[in-house]
Amino acid sequence: MARLNDNYLKLQAGYLFPEISRRVTAFADAHPNDKVIRLGIGDVTKPLVPAVLKAFHDGVDDLAKGASFHGYGPEQGYSWLSQTIIDKAYKPLGVELEASEVFISDGSKCDSANILDIFDLSCKVAIGDPVYPVYNDTNVMVGRTGKADEKGYYEGIVYMPCTEENGFAPAFPSEKVDIIYLCFPNNPTGTVATKEVLKSWVDYALDNDAVILFDAAYEAFITEPGIPHSIYEIDGAKKCAIEFRSFSKTAGFTGVRCGLTVVPHDLMASTADGEKVSLNQLWNRRQCTKFNGVSYPVQKAAAAVYSDEGWAQVQEIIAYYMENARIIREGLQEAGITCYGGVNAPYIWLKTPEGMTSWDFFDKLLNECFVVGTPGSGFGPSGEGYFRLSAFGERENVEEAVKRIRQKWGK
Amino acid sequence: MARLNDNYLKLQAGYLFPEISRRVTAFADAHPNDKVIRLGIGDVTKPLVPAVLKAFHDGVDDLAKGASFHGYGPEQGYSWLSQTIIDKAYKPLGVELEASEVFISDGSKCDSANILDIFDLSCKVAIGDPVYPVYNDTNVMVGRTGKADEKGYYEGIVYMPCTEENGFAPAFPSEKVDIIYLCFPNNPTGTVATKEVLKSWVDYALDNDAVILFDAAYEAFITEPGIPHSIYEIDGAKKCAIEFRSFSKTAGFTGVRCGLTVVPHDLMASTADGEKVSLNQLWNRRQCTKFNGVSYPVQKAAAAVYSDEGWAQVQEIIAYYMENARIIREGLQEAGITCYGGVNAPYIWLKTPEGMTSWDFFDKLLNECFVVGTPGSGFGPSGEGYFRLSAFGERENVEEAVKRIRQKWGK
Repeated sequence: MARLNDNYLKLQAGYLFPEISRRVTAFADAHPNDKVIRLGIGDVTKPLVPAVLKAFHDGVDDLAKGASFHGYGPEQGYSWLSQTIIDKAYKPLGVELEASEVFISDGSKCDSANILDIFDLSCKVAIGDPVYPVYNDTNVMVGRTGKADEKGYYEGIVYMPCTEENGFAPAFPSEKVDIIYLCFPNNPTGTVATKEVLKSWVDYALDNDAVILFDAAYEAFITEPGIPHSIYEIDGAKKCAIEFRSFSKTAGFTGVRCGLTVVPHDLMASTADGEKVSLNQLWNRRQCTKFNGVSYPVQKAAAAVYSDEGWAQVQEIIAYYMENARIIREGLQEAGITCYGGVNAPYIWLKTPEGMTSWDFFDKLLNECFVVGTPGSGFGPSGEGYFRLSAFGERENVEEAVKRIRQKWGK
Repeated sequence: MARLNDNYLKLQAGYLFPEISRRVTAFADAHPNDKVIRLGIGDVTKPLVPAVLKAFHDGVDDLAKGASFHGYGPEQGYSWLSQTIIDKAYKPLGVELEASEVFISDGSKCDSANILDIFDLSCKVAIGDPVYPVYNDTNVMVGRTGKADEKGYYEGIVYMPCTEENGFAPAFPSEKVDIIYLCFPNNPTGTVATKEVLKSWVDYALDNDAVILFDAAYEAFITEPGIPHSIYEIDGAKKCAIEFRSFSKTAGFTGVRCGLTVVPHDLMASTADGEKVSLNQLWNRRQCTKFNGVSYPVQKAAAAVYSDEGWAQVQEIIAYYMENARIIREGLQEAGITCYGGVNAPYIWLKTPEGMTSWDFFDKLLNECFVVGTPGSGFGPSGEGYFRLSAFGERENVEEAVKRIRQKWGK
């Protein structure tokens, strides 16, 4: 009988968000008349902006006529989109990229999972804790780990705890690693890295011949000046880092699906024989063979995010969400709840009241306040006792959620 | 230094279609005034049909309003689309499926590549020759093979030659295998499997505890009655087969991106300890962790393919392409060129005139007739001396291409 990939069976329980969805659905079915406010999964709620909608429709219209029809596009994405991203999102940061270094995809989740394809299984991996579960789970799935211990740490992965004590800033890995996942602004803790901190990571990676997988999915939510939006703002990063970006949160594309990955030509890895090969070449081969490009109208819509009109419209929505973040953060703080994040990221990372476990707080919040959040422990053992609230939501819902939480726990 | 996946370096040259694209671009740049007719890559040319366009626009409009906005959708696709596919594409064949057995994706290429994630590396694989290159190359990339020999066969893969002698119908693998790739209607040869032939494969797989990966991307092009459109028309197939389908050719979605994969609950594989686990469960976990669902407006557009109006419109286009196929097939036959396929598939598989190699014929056809096709040898060693012409194209271009070929080689 065909053998399955046993590594999948090492994974604990379900993937975090389907489990949340299961509990919320069960609650909603049992309480059809109570209004549940969802600040759990980090999903946007605002409609697409007008400039993006127009370009999306125009893209569909192009497919209505033979002369403007588009079949298979480049697996790497259309160069008009890559070039727009370079010109509008990278050049203003002082970062120069070539179009062949930018790969358009159907989302950062896929890319940050699929990127493992091009690395040898022997590579040692360092992951934050708490962390976006995809980094951890995909390493388990490819067989880079043993089983999980009681706490949930998988044998073979080097975890970098991000705790209140270290300001949720990971320390350098405790042993030599080949691949380091970094995510700033961070999901779930909402913390950011200053230029100095990010430089220390780039220097560390260069000194230790490691590759940084830098997840910048939330860079558009940075409000404070001086915080880097791209790891390539740091000298030397092109020799050690791959960067993931997404239109999901920036422009409300969670249901539209578009992201991008930058793999610089200068980024090398080693063959078994010690020969250096550009990872750009390998990722290009991976995408050409296993991917078929992003939907054409979606790419048209994505390009419109960077039009003058589109960018102004998108910024308004980001500001709206960040005002939600402020309301949640300040409301909770006034209720005596300790919380982090929410300044340069759309996530508030709070300490559960009364020392509750994350899932106990989840259930209590759902059952008594009808508010959905995400248990911190779902992001890793160091997330236990913490809880993530997302700032994506309608203002009145966010205000209502904060009111309910303050009524329940406030002083 | 981080180690790269050395298996990628075993791959020969570029992936087939980028290489064709490179040669065609070079030719077109050198001959800006000559009209190149492209019957190479199997890409559709007709616009989307009106019913699909309307649904696509409606889907985009849904994203314009908060009340109808859709963010993250189910990783498996919306159940309204899965259920429509079951009702309209499977039930009429007498095939019963549950919605949880159907996974909507951004295309068959991705799925037929990614499916390897859930199998153990020890699985022995059988692949047709010639074959859609993705099956072969993705097995090389995951490390299931050694190097390629002089002919292009990779050590460790069991090849099933499809030749003029066996009517391009693969014989059972020469040794015990765990995974068998089948594609009917076949790309590139255009051949189909009768119910009896397909039953013999299902019986073989059940007897030998093998899993069939059945690529049905071209089922909509079957014109002869009695030819199975799905492997699940055969009793027992749910216990041994995964089926891939695509909207790419059926409805002109090559640039829109939508496909689906059926993984029946009854399909089991074995753990290292001999325990049987449903592959549906593993694929579901794979998709939840590494994929984020298909663009919402694209799913709306896909569902409209199966509306009464949409289906009728799509059938008209398929008939148009199949008339192209007839024109190519009969035109070439009248010119004394031996050719196959083109009756139940949009591909004509021709023997190169004068015993030319496939790439020599490619270059000659490009340089002397300004016609682009696909070298048979690009699909595998047994494709050497053959050539694939695609029936996707505008009628006048197809007629012009046939005229030029007949002028060059006709009697």
